[in-house]
Amino acid sequence: MISVTLLGAGNVGTHLFKAIHKSKQVSLKQWYNRSIESISSYKNKVSITDDISTLEEADVYILTVSDDAIADISSQLPFENRLVVHTAGSVNIHNLDKKHKRGVFYPMQSLSKSAEIDFKDVPICIETIDKADYHLLKSLALSLGCPVKKVNSDQRHVLHLAAVFVNNFTNQMYRIAHEITESEATEFDLLKPLIMETARKVQDMSPYMAQTGPAMRGNLKTIKKHLALLKKEQHKDIYNLITQSIQDTHASTPLSNRKS
Amino acid sequence: MISVTLLGAGNVGTHLFKAIHKSKQVSLKQWYNRSIESISSYKNKVSITDDISTLEEADVYILTVSDDAIADISSQLPFENRLVVHTAGSVNIHNLDKKHKRGVFYPMQSLSKSAEIDFKDVPICIETIDKADYHLLKSLALSLGCPVKKVNSDQRHVLHLAAVFVNNFTNQMYRIAHEITESEATEFDLLKPLIMETARKVQDMSPYMAQTGPAMRGNLKTIKKHLALLKKEQHKDIYNLITQSIQDTHASTPLSNRKS
Repeated sequence: MISVTLLGAGNVGTHLFKAIHKSKQVSLKQWYNRSIESISSYKNKVSITDDISTLEEADVYILTVSDDAIADISSQLPFENRLVVHTAGSVNIHNLDKKHKRGVFYPMQSLSKSAEIDFKDVPICIETIDKADYHLLKSLALSLGCPVKKVNSDQRHVLHLAAVFVNNFTNQMYRIAHEITESEATEFDLLKPLIMETARKVQDMSPYMAQTGPAMRGNLKTIKKHLALLKKEQHKDIYNLITQSIQDTHASTPLSNRKS
Repeated sequence: MISVTLLGAGNVGTHLFKAIHKSKQVSLKQWYNRSIESISSYKNKVSITDDISTLEEADVYILTVSDDAIADISSQLPFENRLVVHTAGSVNIHNLDKKHKRGVFYPMQSLSKSAEIDFKDVPICIETIDKADYHLLKSLALSLGCPVKKVNSDQRHVLHLAAVFVNNFTNQMYRIAHEITESEATEFDLLKPLIMETARKVQDMSPYMAQTGPAMRGNLKTIKKHLALLKKEQHKDIYNLITQSIQDTHASTPLSNRKS
């Protein structure tokens, strides 16, 4: 049985609470949050506190606080030489106070409080300073049902950057499509099956192989029509830049071999 | 029973063949293709031809040829006053020869020969010149199991443009993520659950509400780190431009209310 104390109650903290609460191999010692109100509804399920000095002994302390609060909170912890991890994709492991054994437990998933998620779809990227701590964190992740990947700092930072492209930037592509369909009284809903299929395709095929469309085919007539339809200069800039990027990616594929 | 003759054997043509072949309410009269070899393996299932002068009478002729061939092929058809439709998102309905009754039967989906698709996930956008023809095309689409949407030319062009954003441009976001993870010896596979979840989220939530991440939170420290990690100038340009677009979209949301 691995004992865990959770700090923070944002999206990651709340999802981790639920996963730990469900797991039979992990016990949640305490849940700390700066504002006790936001976790008070859980007080019958776990010991809650807003007083950092009352934290008891646990195998792992998981900091799910905001990036900028990680250094501060880790030095305020009233003990040393215990395993303390943060969950951020782009924060250095050395931001954690060096009085602790340190690690990173980074969930590669988009977690919103409002959306349920199956933890088998939450790969955990684990980084530790001591090898021994890796094994404990791996057991913890597996106990929550998560796939596990050992990473170093460089790999984690690159994964976080890549996640911005496939999550935030992709979502902004959806947003722009929403804007332009709404402005012409058509329905964004019609695009939803295409959105799912585009994501599904790259589960078994490389994005390189999955590409189609006017940019890839070099269909200048359609590209010109599209640019004329776009009303915002910024949308035209995005259209031009990503079209160029697609053409550069596929520049070595003869046009005649490109799928329509 | 609706009788259909199919022209062209690319991605759309091949998927339509399969859907029509499966449907009990639609009969496939003939399948024409310029090159008979590419459809010769289907000759036991349907009457195939590469001679346009041999086309027999059918209720609908569906042109799935390339955008640039639509006008030509439609004028070569050896009859008039029958219903002829094309399947292109961005080609004018008037590109079809005016000797025909004309329509557009545009599937809003990414169809690759190699990937199976359920036609319930292929919304058909229908445009016709005569109202009566709309009802026949609607019956045809419903017989294939497709959702149906009546559109005018402007709406269809906008939907095609929006489809480029959610399909081709999104796929290029995946491609860039693939490139940067590969270059650092990490695994693109780790991103696959996040790709699915990002697509799944906007099935019930607007892309505006679903947005998260450093651009949205105005986390300049992380944005700077990410830009330093990107090696290609073009990737930096894309990062900057889409980050700006996200910030403009959410400019009216106070930073403190933005989700992490």
